[in-house]
Amino acid sequence: MGKYVLGVDFGTLSGRAVLVDTATGAVLGQEAENYRSGVITGALPDGTPLPDTFALADPADYTEVLEHVITRLVARNIVPAEDIIGIGLDVTCSTFIPTDEAGIPLSKKTGFAGNPQAHMKMWKHHHAEKQAEKLTALMNERGESFRERCGGIINAEWMLPKLLEICEEAPEVWQAAANFEEAGDYLVRHLTGKTVRSQVMMGYKMVEDPEEHTPDEAFLEAAHPGFGAAYEKLKGTRLLPGASAGGLLPEIADRLGLPAGIPAAAANIDAHVAYPALGITEPGAALMILGTSCCLILAAEEERPVPGIFGAVKDGVLPGCIGYEAGQSAVGDLFEWFEKNAVPAYAEREAAEKGQSVLAYMTDLAAELKPGASGLLALDWWNGNRSVLSDVNLSGMILGMTLKTRPEEIFRALIESVAFGMRKILDTFETSGVPVRALYACGGISKKNRLLLQIYADVLNREILVGESDQCSALGSAIFAAVAAGEAAGGYRDLKAAASAMGHTEPETVKPDAAVVTVYEKMYREYELLHDYFGRGENDVMKRLIELRH
Amino acid sequence: MGKYVLGVDFGTLSGRAVLVDTATGAVLGQEAENYRSGVITGALPDGTPLPDTFALADPADYTEVLEHVITRLVARNIVPAEDIIGIGLDVTCSTFIPTDEAGIPLSKKTGFAGNPQAHMKMWKHHHAEKQAEKLTALMNERGESFRERCGGIINAEWMLPKLLEICEEAPEVWQAAANFEEAGDYLVRHLTGKTVRSQVMMGYKMVEDPEEHTPDEAFLEAAHPGFGAAYEKLKGTRLLPGASAGGLLPEIADRLGLPAGIPAAAANIDAHVAYPALGITEPGAALMILGTSCCLILAAEEERPVPGIFGAVKDGVLPGCIGYEAGQSAVGDLFEWFEKNAVPAYAEREAAEKGQSVLAYMTDLAAELKPGASGLLALDWWNGNRSVLSDVNLSGMILGMTLKTRPEEIFRALIESVAFGMRKILDTFETSGVPVRALYACGGISKKNRLLLQIYADVLNREILVGESDQCSALGSAIFAAVAAGEAAGGYRDLKAAASAMGHTEPETVKPDAAVVTVYEKMYREYELLHDYFGRGENDVMKRLIELRH
Repeated sequence: MGKYVLGVDFGTLSGRAVLVDTATGAVLGQEAENYRSGVITGALPDGTPLPDTFALADPADYTEVLEHVITRLVARNIVPAEDIIGIGLDVTCSTFIPTDEAGIPLSKKTGFAGNPQAHMKMWKHHHAEKQAEKLTALMNERGESFRERCGGIINAEWMLPKLLEICEEAPEVWQAAANFEEAGDYLVRHLTGKTVRSQVMMGYKMVEDPEEHTPDEAFLEAAHPGFGAAYEKLKGTRLLPGASAGGLLPEIADRLGLPAGIPAAAANIDAHVAYPALGITEPGAALMILGTSCCLILAAEEERPVPGIFGAVKDGVLPGCIGYEAGQSAVGDLFEWFEKNAVPAYAEREAAEKGQSVLAYMTDLAAELKPGASGLLALDWWNGNRSVLSDVNLSGMILGMTLKTRPEEIFRALIESVAFGMRKILDTFETSGVPVRALYACGGISKKNRLLLQIYADVLNREILVGESDQCSALGSAIFAAVAAGEAAGGYRDLKAAASAMGHTEPETVKPDAAVVTVYEKMYREYELLHDYFGRGENDVMKRLIELRH
Repeated sequence: MGKYVLGVDFGTLSGRAVLVDTATGAVLGQEAENYRSGVITGALPDGTPLPDTFALADPADYTEVLEHVITRLVARNIVPAEDIIGIGLDVTCSTFIPTDEAGIPLSKKTGFAGNPQAHMKMWKHHHAEKQAEKLTALMNERGESFRERCGGIINAEWMLPKLLEICEEAPEVWQAAANFEEAGDYLVRHLTGKTVRSQVMMGYKMVEDPEEHTPDEAFLEAAHPGFGAAYEKLKGTRLLPGASAGGLLPEIADRLGLPAGIPAAAANIDAHVAYPALGITEPGAALMILGTSCCLILAAEEERPVPGIFGAVKDGVLPGCIGYEAGQSAVGDLFEWFEKNAVPAYAEREAAEKGQSVLAYMTDLAAELKPGASGLLALDWWNGNRSVLSDVNLSGMILGMTLKTRPEEIFRALIESVAFGMRKILDTFETSGVPVRALYACGGISKKNRLLLQIYADVLNREILVGESDQCSALGSAIFAAVAAGEAAGGYRDLKAAASAMGHTEPETVKPDAAVVTVYEKMYREYELLHDYFGRGENDVMKRLIELRH
């Protein structure tokens, strides 16, 4: 008799639950729902205006979506509810909520509804740039041991600078908050009543090492008086992925139509959780999660300092391994920018005549072009550079235009630039002593744009294995649920066993074309020259132009 | 009783005649006509395929248009035909025709109709790149005295390399040609029966100095055996602008409805001829002729070596002065490229709703933007760089793009890049000891796009005087006709007198905005850095990418 698990993936705009067969990893059903308030920008619900840099959300939307999608999925009676043995979930990160002693979000309390700093901050809240710079400088000045775990740079999207932002700019919120909960931990508490904390989230977004006890209070206090007390407001036992956070509370089990007491796994980060969904069980595998941006996850046996990576956390991805995270700030977003701002009207008409979307049509035209034939080369920094320069104040560049340059050539150059950016990341790992033995891809764009994958394969000169599921994150959360449930209940004894059985890639891989590889090799040398010229201080024109804007 | 002159301007695709009052310069009527075959590319009329680099034309189209436009204009009886006292004409250059001993174009002769090298070559025929490089190297190697007159570089569009192209690649044409006539001289011969030669055309496009007798035979022979005989095939007395080439032949005067014997002025170059049409009579005035490309004409008291100029010819523009030519390869062409290839469909719809052309709408949007506010910066090399780098193997670049970059911001950055390119040219003149005391503009774009002129004024920090006529070249040819006719006939004794009376600028000038000048000053420093980085050998990526295309 089969056993089943639920995985729930919370993205930026919506949540999605999948019901998965623990034996095969087959997704038997799924339900999705948008958050009622979406991402809150511009103004708070009460009308309080927000700076441009603010991106907030309502935690009530998340618990609502959690309950709705599970309830609907269970109610479909695809499998007997009593055979569902666990729940796992993943959320964008760092997306966190200031809560009081009773666990109530501050934003729901009298006196705080109109205070922007009391609200749930999304991962893409970009107001802590100043704090990120301050912490980076301080970390390097003090020679902190955790420097190497974050590639030498504290990113403004992480929890650490966003906490400092509250401490510095809203002491009343800092004072009133008993805990700052990642949305993932908040949702796990909603299911189990337990205050626990995803160790992976803390590792990547607070640079926390629980064994080393870093960053220590002295460092935090040096950043701002009072900030040393941050750990008191980061309550909860640290749990690794696949650990059970506790059993489902009877009252919520009842509402959801699930057996009470089945375990909820510790929350995980939405991108990271996809790793086992492709059946990856060994270190050396690099996984590109391709969506609006690109997140790269790579597990390695040994820790090495890798300049410009986003984070390195022990046990973060595979037990016993160092889990590296790196990424690119604009992939799908870059293509969408191109579609909306630079595709001429005639191409839109031609696409309509063919019954294609504009991007699908441009992709078809771009696919017919020979590498190097346009003479174009771009730097993919339309949203700054996340890895390996880790600099939001860089911008996009394209050169080689002539009076004959066509829009599909520009589009292909943009795709190529993203692939060159990835090559720079993988090369940096390898030259830093972290081997990349296999390359995987998943995420929306990996399914929608095969040209992108082919260009990645050609530029990287690597075969690419593509995730079979189009919901690799939700499936990954289900796999961790099977681990949390354990072998006795019909789950698995460990992640390796679960991923081997439940994770899959497509039978066909994307293989590099040897004839094209040599052309891209030459173009990549040019990309590198420009990458370093504009990105490493030789000519800071991009930064000076940004200053001039203000 | 009034006296009148005819000016005929032969552009790339059409010819245009104006009838002008010698007393005031008022244009009383005009007639235009396209050449029957336009620019011949792809294949000859008999089907012989042409290389991509070939741009040919049919001389019969030019004589046809010459006769048609004059006949129509005279037939309108705007003024009594007997009061028309002279004809002047200007043609694109170097656009030349191999002819036999009898003056018949070789392309019209048995055995040559299918020979591409026997045809009339347009100015924009780009097949002599190799020969231009060879001649440049040879000139510098031998330390030839004429190096400084051409900015150190022989351009592939000139007659000199195009003649060598024929000598090297088509010895049968070289052998059979008795003369290589500039289209302007060919048309003057059609009117007068006289074989004369525009000294200005020879000066700019053959680097000829008739006093110095350079380039000499030894230099030419060193380029290729037999090429030393080139002067034998460049027959005709050299005539300066405003000199009479001879009287109108009775049979053609009869056909055109004009008095026989009235003088035809020596032919001139289409851009240069505009100088007096703005009433310019003193050295130090820089005139931008803004069309698909930009030609800059500047007369100076003394000759100085100016790196990267297109040419410097004594008496070339104003009698007794050195006439400098410089330019930008893409202005209107660049904006047209943008319009066709990079304006999104929504903007085209918005323009249609407002009843505007796409470019007019984008210009309005771009005009609302603050300088520097987009963070964008471009290099205007979509068609290579004519001055001061004089390098066709450079290409366009733009940087500073973010996910919020809008098309009108890109358009403004392109306009700004053209202005920065002009600033580089004017700065180079001034630092070389050639003062620029006043700035003038004429040509189609000076009338159509006031934003461009305002940005020129702001970037150059100079007031701009705009030509009153929208046909400054044809008007200029008419002014030279008045000089050729002479004072006794109702014309003028010299160019200064003619230009003072007949040339005009608009009453309103375009003035720089002091607040904007300082922002553009900063942006220009950034432009200069990138100009030198990409253009002066520090990073030859543009050239390497062009090589990779092949």
